[in-house]
Amino acid sequence: MSDDACVFCELIESGDGVWVAREGLAAAFLTLPTGALAPGHTLVVPTAHCVGVLDASPESLAATTALVQRVSVAMTRALGATGVVVLNASGPFSGQTVGHLHFHVVPRWPDDDAELWPSDRSSHAPIPDAGELLAAVLR
Amino acid sequence: MSDDACVFCELIESGDGVWVAREGLAAAFLTLPTGALAPGHTLVVPTAHCVGVLDASPESLAATTALVQRVSVAMTRALGATGVVVLNASGPFSGQTVGHLHFHVVPRWPDDDAELWPSDRSSHAPIPDAGELLAAVLR
Repeated sequence: MSDDACVFCELIESGDGVWVAREGLAAAFLTLPTGALAPGHTLVVPTAHCVGVLDASPESLAATTALVQRVSVAMTRALGATGVVVLNASGPFSGQTVGHLHFHVVPRWPDDDAELWPSDRSSHAPIPDAGELLAAVLR
Repeated sequence: MSDDACVFCELIESGDGVWVAREGLAAAFLTLPTGALAPGHTLVVPTAHCVGVLDASPESLAATTALVQRVSVAMTRALGATGVVVLNASGPFSGQTVGHLHFHVVPRWPDDDAELWPSDRSSHAPIPDAGELLAAVLR
């Protein structure tokens, strides 16, 4: 279930890092201070290796997102946050930097003066029938 | 389960909008073109009203994130995307603009030339013991 070449699998096995939760199917640890978008910025990951939301097992995804919720609530209780931002990049050319599913949970405060919404937009060609194409696959 | 003053509850009830999936507990529709970060940018929401990840019921959250996964996979199959970015803002001062839980699912392509990671950072005061404070609440 773990991947020898994966730094997050290595972290999970070694226990290195600042852990805020370690459960059977999911775990959460502070991101490195150099990459933190805010104090308390936490990564929530499945303990079983998968690359992202595209290939996660239903059990891993459900456990990981349930822990995202618990971490978010903990940020309001323990850190006085009023809200959170949840971010994930999955798959090639998505901006994903570590190939093990991880949700960033970033606490927000009234005084944090941060714009955590992307300011850029895709330059991909328009797809006028995107809705129908997606609906057809999801039917 | 719906909120009369909520624009997403109204959409769900009226059926207006470009829907890509309508299921019992969760649904997905294209975001308005003016707000789209990419072609096919989709919002995935629970059909029962809740504000965000902080107050979602376990069932709503699990159904919504499972649909996030299905929409993500559909973006690779139907739109040729190689990956996705998943974004959510929940709660006061989080940047959330509509008070009904919604995950943004944004398809990514090698040629989209977009930086969809926030460029800004929180100005909130450092919390040196954030990890311990969170772990204590999550124990």
